[in-house]
Amino acid sequence: MSDALPAGSVIGILGGGQLGRMLSVAASRLGYRCHIFEPGAQPPAGHVAEQVTTASYDDHAALRAFADAVDVITYEFENIPTAALDLLETLKPIRPGRAALAASQDRLTEKTFLQELGLQTAPFADVSDAASLDAAIAAIGAPAILKTRTLGYDGKGQARLKTADDAAEALASMAGAPAILEGFVDFSHEVSVIAARGLTGEVVCYDPGENVHRDGILHTTTVPARLSGSQRMDAALLAGKILTSLDYVGVMGVELFVTPGGLIVNEIAPRVHNSGHWTQAGCAVDQFEQHIRAVVGLPLGDGQRHADVEMLNLIGDDVADLNTQMRATRTQVHLYGKAEAKPGRKMGHVNRVLG
Amino acid sequence: MSDALPAGSVIGILGGGQLGRMLSVAASRLGYRCHIFEPGAQPPAGHVAEQVTTASYDDHAALRAFADAVDVITYEFENIPTAALDLLETLKPIRPGRAALAASQDRLTEKTFLQELGLQTAPFADVSDAASLDAAIAAIGAPAILKTRTLGYDGKGQARLKTADDAAEALASMAGAPAILEGFVDFSHEVSVIAARGLTGEVVCYDPGENVHRDGILHTTTVPARLSGSQRMDAALLAGKILTSLDYVGVMGVELFVTPGGLIVNEIAPRVHNSGHWTQAGCAVDQFEQHIRAVVGLPLGDGQRHADVEMLNLIGDDVADLNTQMRATRTQVHLYGKAEAKPGRKMGHVNRVLG
Repeated sequence: MSDALPAGSVIGILGGGQLGRMLSVAASRLGYRCHIFEPGAQPPAGHVAEQVTTASYDDHAALRAFADAVDVITYEFENIPTAALDLLETLKPIRPGRAALAASQDRLTEKTFLQELGLQTAPFADVSDAASLDAAIAAIGAPAILKTRTLGYDGKGQARLKTADDAAEALASMAGAPAILEGFVDFSHEVSVIAARGLTGEVVCYDPGENVHRDGILHTTTVPARLSGSQRMDAALLAGKILTSLDYVGVMGVELFVTPGGLIVNEIAPRVHNSGHWTQAGCAVDQFEQHIRAVVGLPLGDGQRHADVEMLNLIGDDVADLNTQMRATRTQVHLYGKAEAKPGRKMGHVNRVLG
Repeated sequence: MSDALPAGSVIGILGGGQLGRMLSVAASRLGYRCHIFEPGAQPPAGHVAEQVTTASYDDHAALRAFADAVDVITYEFENIPTAALDLLETLKPIRPGRAALAASQDRLTEKTFLQELGLQTAPFADVSDAASLDAAIAAIGAPAILKTRTLGYDGKGQARLKTADDAAEALASMAGAPAILEGFVDFSHEVSVIAARGLTGEVVCYDPGENVHRDGILHTTTVPARLSGSQRMDAALLAGKILTSLDYVGVMGVELFVTPGGLIVNEIAPRVHNSGHWTQAGCAVDQFEQHIRAVVGLPLGDGQRHADVEMLNLIGDDVADLNTQMRATRTQVHLYGKAEAKPGRKMGHVNRVLG
């Protein structure tokens, strides 16, 4: 622990949503204080952080003051403007580092990186205009899915092509943004591995969870996932390969499609991940604490799963009546303190210990 | 849930130590915000609370402003000055209520209350001067222990009498404070029950834990405690009797001596309790969340124990090297964010899931 930031140090977190909120709580368990940087007013993470800076990512004076006030910087989302990172990294360590952000902010860079590591991805092709889209459809076939290269999440910035006839409409919906066409993968189910790598290079993976989506948003994650022993091993090995090749420090979410031909990497997220919320109920050290441990240079904790868990996301009006969940056995309700329950907004989640 | 304070409501907490800190974290899980009132600077709870008022308990303007800013008031310690409570209770509900504070702030009142409920306590007698101490020794015998009626904790404000010859010195150490003499109880071990009562009167007890003290400070709590089935039932029933008779709302710690003649109540604490920290690792809903649920009027959660746990307090320099605990399997380290590790100061605790 001699190399770890001493207890009482301040962790700067870019982003004040529910992930920042749960990171701040985890940091408090280890004696650290948190400072949130967030453009939006009343960020959920602000309820449990010692300091909040409300400022835009192009406010360089605010960024400088934030960096001066903290000992290390981490983040709860990957789409941080590059200029802000360029400034911050001259002032304080940013963990996970820039390589991970570069590899995950852009779908084309991400898939190219994964292929170069020897990992399987969906077939993909760069699309910048009608001609390159036609070429992509010729190479990949249809159905396929057109996605903006950057800034997409929870099904946003995507258009499905049932046939080549949908090309023009799909391209128009990208509004001129650089895109990639991805072929469909014939998978039986999706799993994700939440992996962590410490400052000294040690890697720990949580047991993979099985994800079910609804309307493009994660609905449930259940552990254990339906995987053979060798699939489970493959998942851990490929996650370790990704983290190590990026000299990664922190927790990463790696989404995988399970196919007869092996595991296919869907996407990586260089942060704590919604599909890892189950660790709050199933492990002594959850993904949020594991991320904080890595970021401050503490040894990684015990991520062994001691219980089967189902995590259920509470979206929009799902929080209107929680009486049943509040009273249920072996059940944790987590709410994010968001003021308004808009449709599609993640308001909380429920962890139910199974069996 | 219709009678519960809505998510986003503000819970005022009197006291900013580690208990307030962990209450604030638990409140955030349920979507509530916390406001800490604490005379001392840099309170640990302030790191994870939305607001902190730094003011004395005799600053009535500050107390009024605090009450105006919150929706309900609770506390992390029982020795709150009476005048402050007199003011606050005219402004916002205080939970647990005054009856519980009255019964626990004064050892004489507490023991009298417990006896009137038909529960066993150590033999005791009121001591105000040398004559009443002599009478008390005559009635109770020696060895015995002289304790201040108010404000004692962690072994402070106590003097042991090996024989009647120690009377004068023991009395002098009370410095004129009202006291009681307690006879020694021949007990095999100490256990405590963490019990909760909701706003609608429902009572839930956690499985009793077995406590070991060192130098007058709790050292470990282990669950399950060594108790027969009927002792376990007795413990829950007597805790329920105490809470119900006080129309209690919140979590209470009830310390019990185990003797061949039955369970003897040592003391009650109208708050979350150090001997209940194990619930963070052993239950879906821990004592801190259970207290918050009660205070805001939510249904009580599932306090069933799903694992055996040993809780170890980290006192003073115990936090100097945590490398072993940080890496240990099924182990949670909780640090309180206190600046200085003074001897005897509770700095954190470790929850180890056993087996």
